[in-house]
Amino acid sequence: MSISPLTLNRLCFYLRALRRMADAGTQRVSSQQLADRLSLSAAQIRKDLAQLGELGIRGVGYDVAGLVERLTKVLRLDRSYRMVVVGMGNLGRALSAYFGFNHGAFVVVAGVDPDPAKVGREVGGFIVRPLDELADVVREERAQLGVLAVPAAAAQETYDLLVKVGVQGVLNFAPSRVRPVPEVPLKNVDLRIYLEELAYRLPEDAPTGD
Amino acid sequence: MSISPLTLNRLCFYLRALRRMADAGTQRVSSQQLADRLSLSAAQIRKDLAQLGELGIRGVGYDVAGLVERLTKVLRLDRSYRMVVVGMGNLGRALSAYFGFNHGAFVVVAGVDPDPAKVGREVGGFIVRPLDELADVVREERAQLGVLAVPAAAAQETYDLLVKVGVQGVLNFAPSRVRPVPEVPLKNVDLRIYLEELAYRLPEDAPTGD
Repeated sequence: MSISPLTLNRLCFYLRALRRMADAGTQRVSSQQLADRLSLSAAQIRKDLAQLGELGIRGVGYDVAGLVERLTKVLRLDRSYRMVVVGMGNLGRALSAYFGFNHGAFVVVAGVDPDPAKVGREVGGFIVRPLDELADVVREERAQLGVLAVPAAAAQETYDLLVKVGVQGVLNFAPSRVRPVPEVPLKNVDLRIYLEELAYRLPEDAPTGD
Repeated sequence: MSISPLTLNRLCFYLRALRRMADAGTQRVSSQQLADRLSLSAAQIRKDLAQLGELGIRGVGYDVAGLVERLTKVLRLDRSYRMVVVGMGNLGRALSAYFGFNHGAFVVVAGVDPDPAKVGREVGGFIVRPLDELADVVREERAQLGVLAVPAAAAQETYDLLVKVGVQGVLNFAPSRVRPVPEVPLKNVDLRIYLEELAYRLPEDAPTGD
């Protein structure tokens, strides 16, 4: 099954909402209830879930636990992913300690930095290693994903290095465009999107900085 | 004009892509070119842009500079937003220095922390102030947006405090659910979504951590 990027994004949000419902003890949910919660149309949700072979029952809805299990499997979150963070500045250290990166399917197992002053420090359960030991670190720790927390100017060469040492996918926090190779998917994180969405939701008459 | 959350998200991505095209000197773009670049359907893009009153000309496409201007205005990014970061740990310091937060419409103007050891330090152009001076900081620096970079347990009380001192919108990086009041929109950042999308794009036969 091939899922388009925007559908994939929605499925991740469905899973998140459904997990919260399951934690709260909810057993059944209608597409309309999910739609209200996620500000989407019920028709869109039914269409997305039908793609997974999940058909809600009219008047009964979807089985929450069953849907969580199905989405977890489809999204390949029924396995774990080991990550190495490259760049142990404030951002790299913050990401290494970030709960969302050390919970469930994802776990930061190592961090490297070119700066000797940062090497040897303990950060969130591991000791920072030198960047030039990256190949060893990836092999020893069986890291599959790389996280770029380096300055913009170093992003491309660091991605290339991660590819060379056998990492399978890269999450890029550096504010620069990286050209990926087809074999190693790259996901860029641009935190400005959140601010833009927030700004739009401010009251129209809100005073601004201008 | 009212824009749904998912449309809003797409418009932000269109603006990003169009700005890059404008920087590269591109004058015209077709909905199909935008679609290829963003992995979306051309029909979806035409529909979204038609909502803004922007109609591409068949065989000619859209005027890139004109579309950038129109989107900037619709998304209310033609003004500036001043931000205060609450929590000056690794994440708060990283966000204060984050290029995307200090470029164009958004700028971090202040940071506060309850820890006396962090107060008085210079971080990205400002001096960290004590949390209990938040009301003064917001007034003096005319901060409109708050950024929560606090531990999960402190997120709700910190949001409430930001509301009390007059902040108009809050971006929450703490991994916990905050109940917002209707007057002060809240946007939660969950970085796991990026990892989930990346994981799905790995080769099916990729070895995993299990």
